[in-house]
Order: sequence, then C-alpha cells, then structure tokens
Amino acid sequence: MKVVIVGGVAGGATAAARLRRLDESAEIVVFERSGYVSYANCGLPYYIGGIITDRAELTLQTPESFWRRFRVDMRVRHEVTAIHPDTKTVDVKNLATGEVFAESYDKLILSPGARPTQPALPGVGIDRLFTLRTVEDTLKLREFIEQHHPRSAVLAGGGFIGIELVENLRELGLDVTVVQRPKQLLNPLDADMAAFLHAQLREKGVKLMLGRTVEGFAADGDRVNVLIKDEAPLTADMVVLAIGVTPDTGLARDAGLELGIKGSIVVNDRMETSVPDIYAVGDAVQVKHSVTGQDALLSLAGPANKQGRIAADNICGGDSRYLGSQGSSVIKVFDMTIAATGVNEKTARQAGIDCDKVFLSPMSHAGYYPGGKVMTMKVVFEKGTYRLLGAQIVGYEGVDKRIDVLATAIHAGLTGPQLKDLDLAYAPPYSSAKDPVNMAGFMIENLSRGLVEQFFPEDVDALPRDGSATLLDVRTPGEYAAGHAEGFVNLPVDDLREHLAEIPADKPVYLICQSALRSYIACRILSQHGLRCSHLSGGWRLYTAVMQDQAAAQEALPCGMEK
Amino acid sequence: MKVVIVGGVAGGATAAARLRRLDESAEIVVFERSGYVSYANCGLPYYIGGIITDRAELTLQTPESFWRRFRVDMRVRHEVTAIHPDTKTVDVKNLATGEVFAESYDKLILSPGARPTQPALPGVGIDRLFTLRTVEDTLKLREFIEQHHPRSAVLAGGGFIGIELVENLRELGLDVTVVQRPKQLLNPLDADMAAFLHAQLREKGVKLMLGRTVEGFAADGDRVNVLIKDEAPLTADMVVLAIGVTPDTGLARDAGLELGIKGSIVVNDRMETSVPDIYAVGDAVQVKHSVTGQDALLSLAGPANKQGRIAADNICGGDSRYLGSQGSSVIKVFDMTIAATGVNEKTARQAGIDCDKVFLSPMSHAGYYPGGKVMTMKVVFEKGTYRLLGAQIVGYEGVDKRIDVLATAIHAGLTGPQLKDLDLAYAPPYSSAKDPVNMAGFMIENLSRGLVEQFFPEDVDALPRDGSATLLDVRTPGEYAAGHAEGFVNLPVDDLREHLAEIPADKPVYLICQSALRSYIACRILSQHGLRCSHLSGGWRLYTAVMQDQAAAQEALPCGMEK
Repeated sequence: MKVVIVGGVAGGATAAARLRRLDESAEIVVFERSGYVSYANCGLPYYIGGIITDRAELTLQTPESFWRRFRVDMRVRHEVTAIHPDTKTVDVKNLATGEVFAESYDKLILSPGARPTQPALPGVGIDRLFTLRTVEDTLKLREFIEQHHPRSAVLAGGGFIGIELVENLRELGLDVTVVQRPKQLLNPLDADMAAFLHAQLREKGVKLMLGRTVEGFAADGDRVNVLIKDEAPLTADMVVLAIGVTPDTGLARDAGLELGIKGSIVVNDRMETSVPDIYAVGDAVQVKHSVTGQDALLSLAGPANKQGRIAADNICGGDSRYLGSQGSSVIKVFDMTIAATGVNEKTARQAGIDCDKVFLSPMSHAGYYPGGKVMTMKVVFEKGTYRLLGAQIVGYEGVDKRIDVLATAIHAGLTGPQLKDLDLAYAPPYSSAKDPVNMAGFMIENLSRGLVEQFFPEDVDALPRDGSATLLDVRTPGEYAAGHAEGFVNLPVDDLREHLAEIPADKPVYLICQSALRSYIACRILSQHGLRCSHLSGGWRLYTAVMQDQAAAQEALPCGMEK
Repeated sequence: MKVVIVGGVAGGATAAARLRRLDESAEIVVFERSGYVSYANCGLPYYIGGIITDRAELTLQTPESFWRRFRVDMRVRHEVTAIHPDTKTVDVKNLATGEVFAESYDKLILSPGARPTQPALPGVGIDRLFTLRTVEDTLKLREFIEQHHPRSAVLAGGGFIGIELVENLRELGLDVTVVQRPKQLLNPLDADMAAFLHAQLREKGVKLMLGRTVEGFAADGDRVNVLIKDEAPLTADMVVLAIGVTPDTGLARDAGLELGIKGSIVVNDRMETSVPDIYAVGDAVQVKHSVTGQDALLSLAGPANKQGRIAADNICGGDSRYLGSQGSSVIKVFDMTIAATGVNEKTARQAGIDCDKVFLSPMSHAGYYPGGKVMTMKVVFEKGTYRLLGAQIVGYEGVDKRIDVLATAIHAGLTGPQLKDLDLAYAPPYSSAKDPVNMAGFMIENLSRGLVEQFFPEDVDALPRDGSATLLDVRTPGEYAAGHAEGFVNLPVDDLREHLAEIPADKPVYLICQSALRSYIACRILSQHGLRCSHLSGGWRLYTAVMQDQAAAQEALPCGMEK
C-alpha cells in the first residue's frame, strides 16, 4: 500500500507516524510545501517574543528524523499542484528545483491546513505587512524586528494567534494597537466575558480600536498607514494581518471534492472525503460541532492531531470515528488565562438553542492559603433539559483546569446540576472543598429547583426605576459607597431580616451584591417571605467589568496612535 | 421545625447554611465541642509552617458571623453527650460552665467527624506527643514550637495531614523522621507510584523508616524516645501521632444507630441513619465507593460538604442523593504535586476486580514552551470492559488538572479508550495538542486492539535470561551506557529495521526504553515481522524509580536519628 499525504504538520505528521506503527510495509510519502515538517505551530508567536529562544525548539522533527524513526519519506518544499482521483495520482512540484512530477497513491490524506485570510484591500502585499502561520512567516517577522527595531505595530484582527502575537510584541516594548471590525476580541467569548480580556490588554498598554473597518494599507516611507473607514489613518512601523484563516482547499476543489463552509473539505466521521480513497484532516476540514450538531470550522491543533490518527486507523483497516469538535481552547494573555469550551451564549442562540447561564467568581484555591486568585466563570446550559452547552473562564491560576473538567463533563453529556456531584481533588493549594465546577453545579441546580431567579448586566438599565419595583444593594455601606448602580438602595444582607417590613410586599425586588452570593441569600430570605425577587448574576463585579469595557470602547482614540 | 446539628465544621456548617437558605423559619442549633466553627481543617498544617500567617484566616467564620448571616445558633464549647431518639432530645454539656441541659429536635444531623487514632501503646499521653485535628491542636503545636524551638521531630504515620505536617516542620528547619508500619506512605498510591513520593521526601532531607512497628513512647528529659520493635529507639524533641483517624461515633453507638466499618455511621444515599429523623454526614459516616460499589471510609472535605448540603435538602422536603465517594485527593509535597482518584491497583485487586494499567510520563505542557515538567501517570482500568477504575499522578505543574479530568471521566463512566476523544483545551503554556489524558486513552486503546503488550517493573527480575528470550534496550548507546537492566542488549529503535535478521524469530522479545514510547514503536515493528514482543510499561524511568526506592528502604538507618 502506498499512502501519499499532502501537508506535513499536525494532522499530516500524526497520520504518517500512526500509519507506520500500524503498517510496517506501507510506502508513506509526505509532501510539505514549506521547508519544515511537524513544527510547533502554536509556538510561533512565542519565538517572536523571545520566550522560546532556540529556533530548533520549533522544529524538533526533521525529514531525517522522521525517516530514521518511521521510514516516512517527508519531502519539504514540495507542492502538490493537482489531484487526479481517476488515475489516483497527484502532480507535485519541487519548489527548490522547479521539477514537476506525478506521484501515484493507493490512499491520499489531505492535510493542507488553512492560510491567513488576505482581504481584498488596497495595499495588501506591501512591505512591513506580515502574516503569521508558518515557520517562514515567523522567521521573516523576527528578522524584521531584529533588523529594523520597530517601535509600533498594528494588528488587524483579534483571534488566538493575533492576541498571542500582541502580547509578544508588547513584551518586546512595541506600542501595539489592535484594530478590527468586530466589537470584541476572541470570538469564543461572549461580550460580557471579553470585557475582562479587553481590560487586561488595556492595562498592559495595548490600544484597542474595535468596531473599526480597515479599508486598506499604504506605504509611508519606513512606515505603514492603516486606512480606517471614517477615521484618520493609523501609522505604525509594521502591520500584522491576523483577521482569520481560510481553509487551503484549492487542490480539493479542483479535484472535485465536496466542499462546505468557507470552502472547507467535507468529510464523514471516518475522515473520508466525497471521493473514494481520499481522506482529509485538520484545519481544512469541516467538522460537526459536538454540542450543536451543526457543521463548523475550527482551527485547533488538538482536533487536527486526533483526526490524523483516525484517518490512519481507517486506512489500515480499522474503524475509528471522529466524534466532532467541542471547540475547547485556552490562551495566555499576559498574566491572565482565558479559556472556553463548547458553545458560548451567542452561538447557542444562533443555533436556535434556548439557553440560560450562570456566572460565578470563585477563588482558584482555598482563600486561606496564599496566592489564590479570583476567576470569572460563565456556564451556559439548555433551558429545561439543563444540558451543558459551554463554559468560558477568565482568570489566572486554575482556569485551564476548570475548563478541561467542564470540557470533559460536556463531552460525557452531563447536565449542569450533575456538576455538583463531581468528586474533584481538593487540598488548599489547589482548590476549595467545593470546587468552582461544583459551585456552578449548585447554582444551576438551584435554578432548576426554582430556588432563585436572576437578571444580567444587560438587564440593569431597563429595570423599573419608577417606584414599581424595589432595587436593593445588599453589600456593606462601605462597598455601596465605593460605587453602585443607579437607583439601588443599600440594605446589607445581614440587616435584611430586621427591615422586612419596610420592603413593599407587592412589588418585585431586584438585588445586587458584589459577586452574587449575598444577593442569592437575600433572595432566599425575601422569597420565603412571599416577595418576588431576582438577583444580578455575576454581581457588581461582572456588571462593572462590562460597563467599564463599554466606556473604554467609547473613549478609544478616534484617530490612531500618533495622537 | 427545629434542627439540631452536632458538629460545626465542614458538613455541619454547610448543612446549617443550606438549611437556612431553604427554610427561613426553621430553628437551627449547632453544638460544637471545640471553640471554633467552620474552620479551615485542611489549612492547619500550613499554619504550623507559617505559610498561613494569620490565625484568623483559619477561622473566618465565627458563631457571631453565622448568626448575623444565617440566624444559626452556633454554640461552641458545647458537647452533646447523649441522643435520645425516643424523646427526640439530646443531652448537652456546656464545657465552659459545666452546665448540662437537654435540647429537643425535630431533625438531628450528626457531623462529629473523626479523631486521631490513639494507639493503645505505652507512653501515649505524655508531653511533647501531639496530634493534629482541631484548631486547638494546631495552636498547641505551634505554641510548643515557638517556645521550645525543637530541632527534631518524629512523625508516626504517613497519611495526608502527616505528610503536609512533615513538609511544614521541615520548612521550619526541623530534622524530621517518619516511622510507620506500612512500607509506603499515602495509601491512595500504589507502591510503584509511592516511589516518587519517597524520593522527593528523601531529597528534601526527610528520613523515612517504613515497615517499622512503634511499640511505645517514653519521656527522656526534654526529649521523647520512640520505641521501635527490634531496633534502637528514635529520640526527638517532639513526636506527632498521625497514624490515621477513627470516626467519632460513641454518641451514635450509644443511641443505637447502626454502625459500619471502624464504627462509622451507616447512612443511606439520602444521608439518613438507621434511626428516623437522624441524619449523619462527613468523616464519621460510611460511604459507598463509587468505583467498587463497596462500603468505604474516606476522610475528605469535599464529600463532607456535599453530604451536609444533601442532608439539609432532604430535611427540607427535597430528594437529594449522595452518589458515593470516588476518593479524589491531591497533596502538595514540597515541590511536587501528588494526586489520585478512584481506586488504585491494589484496592481494585482486593475488591476482586480484574484490572490492567498503563504508565506514561508526559510533559505538563508543550515541550518547546519553557517550564514544562514531566509527570508520571498511572491509569488503572478493568480488563475486558476497559472501564476506568482509577488514576494516580505524581509530578509538578498540571497534575491537579489531569486528576480532575480523570475524576470527571470516571464519574461519567467513560472507558479508557474514550479518553482519547476528550476535546481538551490546548495552548503551549498549558498542555500539548495531545493532552496527557488523551495519551492515556491512546495507550489503552492500543492495548484493547491488541497492538502492543506490556510488562511491568515487578516482572523484570523474572524475565528469562537463559537465552530463551531476547532482551532489547532500544535507547541510544549513551542512554544505555548510563544505566540499563541486567541482561538487556542495546539496539536503538532507529537501527532496528537494519538488524531484524539478527533477532531470533522463535523467541519472545522484551523491550525497554526510557519512557516506553520508543519501545512501543519497536514492538510495532517487530510484531509486524511476526515476533512475539512486549515492552516495559513506564520504561527505564519508572523502573529505576522503583528500584531506587527499594534500595533506599534497605539502606534506611537501622537505629534512629541519633546515629
């Protein structure tokens, strides 16, 4: 059997190694357009920032090492230019020599990945305008920085790699501005959770120009002007385009393979394309989102590796199935960790799922043990069934742990209230006896039992302030004095029972506290006295984060960094 | 409704707060024998070591704060001396005044906890012999250290609190010796995994005298002699007894409640005892182990808190069920983190479960991103069904994360091979594209598909060295020269294919490499050429850890610290 693999990174490299382990006699040829195989995609931004100091760390595997260990014929700087399913051959161009040749296959695996989306804008292609996807891109970017010592950079786009690059450029001392059309960074987050990300970036001196439309780029001596709709241009020493990636599927299209979202390759759960004996894996394929059941496009390394292994299994006579992508992701943003799994609220609603949510602000570990940090957790679940749909967490220590626990719970089909039953490991340096994930379970169970009702930051403005409702802030007088929502009267939870008679029995009560724990207790007290009440989910803490983010967005410079 | 709760820590305090949230009108009285309520049990060792500097951190809740927030009548220094189920009253003694009175109840919750097991040995009770369970114990121990500046301590017993105390005493500069009858510390670990714990303690200068029987204690001026069977006594400035805890259930026994293991209180999954209207929670109750289905006794804070909440729910007309304990636990041991969930191999075997296991040595995060550390993971599963039974991890960063993911997977009933499908969050600072938990899934799936066979450190001695088998070490010549197992011949995996003809086809082949990755690849090569082969699970890395632990145990001082 002869297997040809197009693309030698992530999914392609995994497939090659697994194929060899399953079939010692197969002939395995990999064509990789770039000069590197199996390189550390996700490490590229950290090489630019100097966190990863040795370039060799990015490219631990070489064609030579792959040959020695696996007898896989890895040919770098070879581009497959056409697939001929009828003759089961591919056309290949040796980019070093220009030689063109045909290679036959019994089975073909496409792992072409995705390439940075290049908008059709004036100026795309000029000097000092970079993208970041391959080792070559990285070396070019780093070389530019070392030679030209740029002092400012504009990043167009705010996805994972973009944000990682922002951090690394900022750590190098550059003045960095992020500009993009969407009003929030990191699409896996809902706007409320993105507020914490934005605050972290602003605190670290990154300028955010969100909701702006880039109309083009223009060289300006040694600088670049970024043209922005209805505003003065931004000027910087370099620009990085990171507005997203597009499946690199021209080959597949030309070969007649069925394509899906954004031209991605349609595969079944065995990673088989619409054409016999051709498999596809990685960022180029359309997946089933395991939560929504809908088709989706997710560029993540974990799924790519799993898919490569599955394709190899099936080529070797196995029956392995890809169960879909759940979109679990995590990113370090300066001191913060931000993570998500499943779908967020906006995606759930777009998918037509009737959902609800809880917010909580637990400590990463026991409060009495030094070093604990508060995280903000949002868990989204389906109304009625309480099926878990997704979670987002922003914080510091312990964020990655909780997102993986939630990812596992979602994968296993647990409901929100079942999170309370998880027997998680506790010692003071690591957690609390009631882990944050258990706490989310308690909260969802309380909702499911009708013990409490909640409202959200987006509801605060519209609360009745005409005397038809009672608005109570149940924090201490000191907390209240330091800042409170308009129209809310202070009545500390511990004093509530003595002042019940003063609260009109016939009006709904809306309650706020700092993190929604005291307001929950206040709700329990009031509702048992026959009052209709509701409390602010996430509390003053979440509300102010959202408000401050909106205010900062308003204040953001109307004209670039030169101001 | 009037609810009386015996014990105001963990389960009792949780029950009281939940009761109030569910029933604003209930009368809730808590009797706590010690002077403190709802204190940070698990923080006590860290107060002794000065990690937690403020004593108030241990006792954040007070009877006063509980009254203000919850209108719970918390009476400290009150001991319940008898329960009268027929009259639904308890006898109470005010330890401050000596006053004795009766208190009626409609519902009673017992949360008496467990107390340090006091062996019936000569000398128990002398000065300078301490236990550690309550805030009072902690204050006494710390006061002794501050006043007398002990330079040496003997710890009898090696459970969680004991090991945490060892670390804290060592950090204070004391010479610390641990002596106990079992040959390994931390019972949730199997002996192979405990080897890493022992090595860490020895590296930090802790003396381990395992497999020794303490026969008594004797005052010796300002010092204490610890009498050891067949050996010279150990002499130290102080001794801490930490050989385990015993459910504190004299009250329950006298009241005629059904008792189980070690005198623990038998409850159903609603936390109801055998006597109507009496509930019990926490360290004093017998639980169902959720993996084995057998009765068990586990002293852990997480379950105690969950049980308190469940008892309160049921008293208030709900129907909450405790699903059993899984024994998830984690402990910091100097630089290391050690964690376990489910059952270990020895417990599984004792429970009559036919089990198998995998060992792996993954990095905590991507190797190319700085700061990653190797962890050692052992996953135990049922033969045939591949049901996950338990996991143990020793390492540094990321250990607590992986144990919680595995705990969640076990709770959800996933099989070993299903671990490969988990969609976990990856970025270089946090994980690898194939997370360690996914890797465990790949390995178990490979076993389930018959792709590889394994042997274990305990099998190495008995391998045939009479020429009837081929023993190969497939590491590099340099690694081999630095140390290898007797009788193993060096043949690097990358050279294997060129030397196939030299390997006798009719003899079984046993393979070793450093961490069992290369030996697995070698197995795949050889078995596809028709050879019967098997590789050392955990590799040379695990094998040497186990061997070194056994050697160190042999060398341990035959007579105490004074030598």
